[in-house]
Amino acid sequence: MERDLVRWLCQRLPAHRRLLVGPGDDAAIVRMTADENLVATTDMLMDGVDFELARHEPERIGRKALAVNLSDLAAMAAQPVAALISLALPRQGGEDLARRLYDGIMPLAAEFDCPIAGGDVNSWDGPLVISVTALGEVPHQRRWRRSGATPGDAILVTGQFGGSILGRHFDFAPRIHEALWLADNATIHAAIDVSDGLSLDLARVCEASGCGAHIDLKNVPIAAAAADLSRQRNDGSTPLDHALTDGEDFELILAVPPDTADQLLREQPLDTPLTRIGTFVSQQGLFTISEDGQRSPLMPRGYEHRLDA
Amino acid sequence: MERDLVRWLCQRLPAHRRLLVGPGDDAAIVRMTADENLVATTDMLMDGVDFELARHEPERIGRKALAVNLSDLAAMAAQPVAALISLALPRQGGEDLARRLYDGIMPLAAEFDCPIAGGDVNSWDGPLVISVTALGEVPHQRRWRRSGATPGDAILVTGQFGGSILGRHFDFAPRIHEALWLADNATIHAAIDVSDGLSLDLARVCEASGCGAHIDLKNVPIAAAAADLSRQRNDGSTPLDHALTDGEDFELILAVPPDTADQLLREQPLDTPLTRIGTFVSQQGLFTISEDGQRSPLMPRGYEHRLDA
Repeated sequence: MERDLVRWLCQRLPAHRRLLVGPGDDAAIVRMTADENLVATTDMLMDGVDFELARHEPERIGRKALAVNLSDLAAMAAQPVAALISLALPRQGGEDLARRLYDGIMPLAAEFDCPIAGGDVNSWDGPLVISVTALGEVPHQRRWRRSGATPGDAILVTGQFGGSILGRHFDFAPRIHEALWLADNATIHAAIDVSDGLSLDLARVCEASGCGAHIDLKNVPIAAAAADLSRQRNDGSTPLDHALTDGEDFELILAVPPDTADQLLREQPLDTPLTRIGTFVSQQGLFTISEDGQRSPLMPRGYEHRLDA
Repeated sequence: MERDLVRWLCQRLPAHRRLLVGPGDDAAIVRMTADENLVATTDMLMDGVDFELARHEPERIGRKALAVNLSDLAAMAAQPVAALISLALPRQGGEDLARRLYDGIMPLAAEFDCPIAGGDVNSWDGPLVISVTALGEVPHQRRWRRSGATPGDAILVTGQFGGSILGRHFDFAPRIHEALWLADNATIHAAIDVSDGLSLDLARVCEASGCGAHIDLKNVPIAAAAADLSRQRNDGSTPLDHALTDGEDFELILAVPPDTADQLLREQPLDTPLTRIGTFVSQQGLFTISEDGQRSPLMPRGYEHRLDA
């Protein structure tokens, strides 16, 4: 089976100026820009954990597997360079499944100018597993990290949060363009993409930076899906709860010096809205601030099962 | 669970001059040599296909997962730069398993100066899956590929073949040092590493190069394990059959101009023996040559289930 599949793939995958040797050899050779560093990230998605093959279209699953990795590149403000894709396919219907996965992967790869440099196709008696590695590059001086937030920095976020399980966790746009624009045009002290939950990923920035955060709950941008999910579940969780804890929003949290933040908020230079949800502070921990200035601790919550190593 | 594991990992993984940002952020940042191209390869190993967790030590499984990828870098004569490792761990005992996998991975990574730049740790109800991406670099002018073999080139191989299932498929040495020496000191027209079988991988070089090969069967270097396996199986397969078809030898097949080949064979400059097993010819297909010069077609056989994309 795999031989036909690999032929199909090699025919479908377009040539790219960066791919000096593309799929079909022992490894790919990729042309890098001479004065840039390499950025590398990998995420594995598994049936029953990150998607349900019985319920979800393979094209959306494939798209998601690449998109979550592009989102990690966005968190480093990296230009995508290439991606590698490994599949463990169920024996039954595996070839058709692989084609449909790639039908979801390839348009997204093209959209972000990220050639598929290679991969590995396997079949087995287990459930579908997709492992993607995304490679990018950044100028030598650029180091967007989680650890650079400074007390006094504004906490800015792209987009809206909550209820992604209703569909957005498949169809979100990785914030590559936004990150590249910001890296070129503004001072950003720290960044992370929200995979596991707004409060949890914000807590990670705080932990890595050795600081804390005040959150203005009334300013948290809540997605319409968060309200839908709150109604559907009817378990007492508010739309705000969903926004703070659901995860898989794949929006960016940014630590931005206050003057820069003011200007960005005024000018809104991105296609995606930027919102200020609070301020980094020296005292460690997450805190909410009420209308009358009262401070209360906020327990970071989210999806704890998948942590990047 | 994963949080402790990731902490353990981040403490264990040594700093490396190339890792400007290592494990623990959204992505790693890796310093490349300015005038080199990036080489990238990925292989996924699955319980029940590439190893049996119930029978094999996790340290050997982890080592193998990295080693097969380093072998692909060797086939491109690439200097390792970094590796990324994704795990799908069974829930039961997954953390201990991950530590033991890494105990096998880390010494091999250190041996080949290949820092672990990051990865992804997941747990699920399925069997163990390990996906490794290895990154390397090559000078701009270097392009070891499968497709460069020329009629008249000698077919040289490193090491010995057959019976790897008795242990060598775990404990083999990726031929990185050998490949780098050859790339720096000799003209090599084409190369592949033998993952799926000597005859099958040789046929792939022929197919990619648009040529064929004559094989002198009496010169094929047969591993002692091939004879052991032939005795154990007692199914009529000779040691030579095992050498030609078993796969997972992870030795190199090289297409070498005849003068260069003669010199290499005379001088034997590598720690691993180099052996000439035949000649690339213009007529497509694999052929054996008997003592009296008779030519017979040889059907390439090997492990067909996992083909690189």
